[in-house]
Amino acid sequence: MLYDTILRRNFNQRCKHMLYGALEAGGTKMVTAVINEKGRVLDRASFPTETPEKTMPVLIEWFKERKIDAIGIGTFGPADLDRSSPTYGYITSTPKLAWKNYNILGAFKEALNVPAGFDTDVNAAALGEASFGCMKGLTDGIYITIGTGIGVGVLTNGKLLHEMLHPEAGHILLTQDPTDTFAGNCPYHKNCFEGLAAGPAIEKRYGKSAKELKDIPEVWKLEAGYIAKALVNYIMILSPKKIVLGGGVMHQEQLFPLIRKKTAKLLNGYINTKEIASIDDYIVPASLNDNQGILGCAKLAELAYSECR
Amino acid sequence: MLYDTILRRNFNQRCKHMLYGALEAGGTKMVTAVINEKGRVLDRASFPTETPEKTMPVLIEWFKERKIDAIGIGTFGPADLDRSSPTYGYITSTPKLAWKNYNILGAFKEALNVPAGFDTDVNAAALGEASFGCMKGLTDGIYITIGTGIGVGVLTNGKLLHEMLHPEAGHILLTQDPTDTFAGNCPYHKNCFEGLAAGPAIEKRYGKSAKELKDIPEVWKLEAGYIAKALVNYIMILSPKKIVLGGGVMHQEQLFPLIRKKTAKLLNGYINTKEIASIDDYIVPASLNDNQGILGCAKLAELAYSECR
Repeated sequence: MLYDTILRRNFNQRCKHMLYGALEAGGTKMVTAVINEKGRVLDRASFPTETPEKTMPVLIEWFKERKIDAIGIGTFGPADLDRSSPTYGYITSTPKLAWKNYNILGAFKEALNVPAGFDTDVNAAALGEASFGCMKGLTDGIYITIGTGIGVGVLTNGKLLHEMLHPEAGHILLTQDPTDTFAGNCPYHKNCFEGLAAGPAIEKRYGKSAKELKDIPEVWKLEAGYIAKALVNYIMILSPKKIVLGGGVMHQEQLFPLIRKKTAKLLNGYINTKEIASIDDYIVPASLNDNQGILGCAKLAELAYSECR
Repeated sequence: MLYDTILRRNFNQRCKHMLYGALEAGGTKMVTAVINEKGRVLDRASFPTETPEKTMPVLIEWFKERKIDAIGIGTFGPADLDRSSPTYGYITSTPKLAWKNYNILGAFKEALNVPAGFDTDVNAAALGEASFGCMKGLTDGIYITIGTGIGVGVLTNGKLLHEMLHPEAGHILLTQDPTDTFAGNCPYHKNCFEGLAAGPAIEKRYGKSAKELKDIPEVWKLEAGYIAKALVNYIMILSPKKIVLGGGVMHQEQLFPLIRKKTAKLLNGYINTKEIASIDDYIVPASLNDNQGILGCAKLAELAYSECR
């Protein structure tokens, strides 16, 4: 706590700098941070995600104390990102019922009275990588998280993609491997990417956690195969200039060479670009020590601040 | 010819109006048109695609005679759409060898000395539908052609999508139907959408043309199933506000209700939007009497003209 106090004092001493509040709103925990305009994390905390009634006052108080200039929220979904919609800023049809149809953006705007940016957690992470990480300078690329779920953030033409809704690209349909008899873990889709390859699918398929399975090559060969099939479809549809893979499952670094090899094999020479020719630099791990989400949220805050000036 | 002459005279009489040249460059034929700013086709012609040496002088002469103010080219691919690339405006690794690495944009620019826009044929068609057809007013939507090949044009955030390359979304991988023993027709990918569902795949699977198969329900049930699987992946990844289906195979209108039903079944209630709730207005046929391509090319010409002013 002393460390926090020192940091806070530091903030006040250099108040000419911007203080961007960042909230990575997850289904399990809420990660808060204060980040300066250079992407330096000055303060951070984590709170369990309970109900809006319990959790929101704690978060609001945390940000109020830190006198932020703007806030950026990257949320679990589905969420309404359509600025022209009457429910813009709401978490919508989430299975976390306490948060269903909750106006999270509105609650922060009202309590903090600062400019506020809003997007999905994975779009925020894509923006984080594009602003401070390995996608810096690119106007187009994707960030994929493979953890308890699978989500994809998409940057295209320099903007985050959200059209009818936002990408739900963890739910694309894949062909099941003929050696894999697992029934899939998605309640909606028999053979979707998330149902076959997210962390819980791995655990249910083998009855062990991903960490316990670390040294069993077949596990990661199958996993890399599913990831590669998904990447081929992302490449064919979005043609990103870089593919960044993050999330808990991707901490299994042995996956990367397997994914690259299998993706190239499936593309089979059809896409001839300099990026695919350098596939080790094309399909890469997240580059910001798992801070890509909050850094992206800070960027959302900065963008919201710029818009309001 | 008399009609053409009258039209040309009309052009000259109202020279205050803009005359946009449109070229839909296909692997089999080149369709040329002159279109005014309201999207009215004032003149059109079609020429076989031979070699650049034979075909280009004819096309250039056609446009020169018509005194166009700008030209828009929608080409077969792959093509280099990256404006910062030294080979911007080239048709690149096409199997039509005479056109491989041919600078089609540069040739027209040099000969006609007017502003010139350049994109893929399917992106042009998407732009045509967005400018004059059923996607009018939308900033996001996709146009899919299913004919001798399968291509997808993508409009997102109000712009046509081309990043690393352009979408090659006819080549996404699909799960083969268990009743379908056809080996697929794509030389690159065993189970890609184009290999399983483009016109030549239908003809090879059954040994008859699509027209001859019109009254056999199983043919269209299988075809609609593949199209629906592809649409689910496009929806999950791009979240378009409208999906327009054109091309020769889609003239089989009995496909539409089958595709809508199967797509809804595969989505299985996961995506809850007003668009999906009105699926008859969401998945629709091309609306411009097969003029979506040249009208989009005219829009490319207009955009190029505006940029140069």
